[in-house]
Amino acid sequence: MNEFELIDRLTRSLTTNKAVVTGPGDDCAVLDLGVPGQLILFKTDAVVQGIHFTTETPPELIGRKALARCLSDIAAMAGTPTAALVTIALPKDFDADFIAKIYDGLNRLAAKYEVAIAGGETTTNPERILISIALLGIVPRGRAALRSGAKTGDAIFVTGELGGSLAGRHLEFEPRLAEARWLAEHFSLHALMDLSDGLAGDLRHMLKASGVGAELLKSSVPVSRAAKSRARENSDAKPAFVAALTDGEDFELLFTIAPRDAVKLLDAWKKKFPGVKLSCIGRIVAGHSLSIRDGRGLRNFEAHGYVHLI
Amino acid sequence: MNEFELIDRLTRSLTTNKAVVTGPGDDCAVLDLGVPGQLILFKTDAVVQGIHFTTETPPELIGRKALARCLSDIAAMAGTPTAALVTIALPKDFDADFIAKIYDGLNRLAAKYEVAIAGGETTTNPERILISIALLGIVPRGRAALRSGAKTGDAIFVTGELGGSLAGRHLEFEPRLAEARWLAEHFSLHALMDLSDGLAGDLRHMLKASGVGAELLKSSVPVSRAAKSRARENSDAKPAFVAALTDGEDFELLFTIAPRDAVKLLDAWKKKFPGVKLSCIGRIVAGHSLSIRDGRGLRNFEAHGYVHLI
Repeated sequence: MNEFELIDRLTRSLTTNKAVVTGPGDDCAVLDLGVPGQLILFKTDAVVQGIHFTTETPPELIGRKALARCLSDIAAMAGTPTAALVTIALPKDFDADFIAKIYDGLNRLAAKYEVAIAGGETTTNPERILISIALLGIVPRGRAALRSGAKTGDAIFVTGELGGSLAGRHLEFEPRLAEARWLAEHFSLHALMDLSDGLAGDLRHMLKASGVGAELLKSSVPVSRAAKSRARENSDAKPAFVAALTDGEDFELLFTIAPRDAVKLLDAWKKKFPGVKLSCIGRIVAGHSLSIRDGRGLRNFEAHGYVHLI
Repeated sequence: MNEFELIDRLTRSLTTNKAVVTGPGDDCAVLDLGVPGQLILFKTDAVVQGIHFTTETPPELIGRKALARCLSDIAAMAGTPTAALVTIALPKDFDADFIAKIYDGLNRLAAKYEVAIAGGETTTNPERILISIALLGIVPRGRAALRSGAKTGDAIFVTGELGGSLAGRHLEFEPRLAEARWLAEHFSLHALMDLSDGLAGDLRHMLKASGVGAELLKSSVPVSRAAKSRARENSDAKPAFVAALTDGEDFELLFTIAPRDAVKLLDAWKKKFPGVKLSCIGRIVAGHSLSIRDGRGLRNFEAHGYVHLI
């Protein structure tokens, strides 16, 4: 049983109440707590030593990454983060300076995005450090962008370049908060999510949630320099295009809009975010499959994105 | 460095913003997100295999405990819980049925208190199960009861009976949500918290936050049957009274009110909650020390409550 099968089983019959607008399955839970004009976004995300970082990772970047991943989920709803709680589980022989530096990195990113660190807790995990962030955000009512709204004919976009994140970007990426909010303010986003498990796997989640399929144009998928150089330098590595589709931790935005808005979006984006690439990588089609078009024609893409270790 | 020293160090300079009403140091963070008449309570709490439960613990009770601890923190603010996210970190060889039963126990308690399980995540922790709950609640503006309001002369109360929780109660306690809300509605609570680390240690946190001392009357401290029988049956065990002051995981309420309200409270409590003991255990005094009065006079109580393993 992999992570997704387990989650399917566990989330089949969860308790709910009238505060829940969107429950399990999207990038954040969406709650209506009666804030005029706003809904609440609620998210948790954990990083674990030996999996999401190593003992060699600079501690400031461990803390930074722990928070940045959660911020990316708020971006994936076109929201604004407000306050976080930090849970840190530590072996008994923890190095207090190392832990303080984890907090430094976390705090610095929190300050940059005006997120309060409102508390949290320390507990014991004898074999390794585990950091879980719980994050609250807000989004104007009617503007939360879900995974489930992709429509046949939509143009599919991604920000940035994909693949090879483990070469460094996974520790230093900027969550696409400003970009997502701008998109939601100026365009009708049909579906939006962030890329954490790789384009192919994450796009499949969006397709499943929306009940549609997708056709990607191979030459339009933005492949990162890191993925290209890894493929070039190591004959055992994935081809760069496969890395762009299946490497995890890109933390870029994936979204769909009506095709009539596509050119207008590309023009406006270049002016607003000249330093961030935006690529139209294909279109939403009827059916359920993910296929890729290249010089040789159209073929199904079977490989999945990163499936977590459990 | 123990847990409290580490927390002191880490929380010295955390990022904040205007949404934060009460930051680190109380039972929950208190946020103002603009809900008319209400503030938001935000809490995380984790349980770890081998520390808060064992492989012998029935899985339904593991899930129950994970959520109940967090609910007790909402009670400690006189609030009402709304929605939770569940983070579960698992070894690779997890037993899906065992995990599903953890969720069953969690869900059942959530349903009882009308708390939505709005999502969460699964991740990997190779050596042991760790469950972290993030919980949101609400409390009427002006009614959140903090640890910091105890005043010289106040009467000190605890609900229930203390000590020996590990004999069973730690897995099956009911969070004192209704009791705390009733208290906050009908009395002016000066300070309120829940007992998780033992009366002596937790009362010391309240005294420190409030800048006061306390004098307890030994004969008034309610000692649980479990603590008494453990002391009787095992000559190596703590004396029952020491267990009542220093055992963790009581999850009872500790609070102070003006002395003029004490008799009225005891009368009204007996009618409202006939099945739950309420004891006036002493009074708040000037100074910083915690002392205990018994037949031999007044002496300082030096032993602390449970200090976490790190």
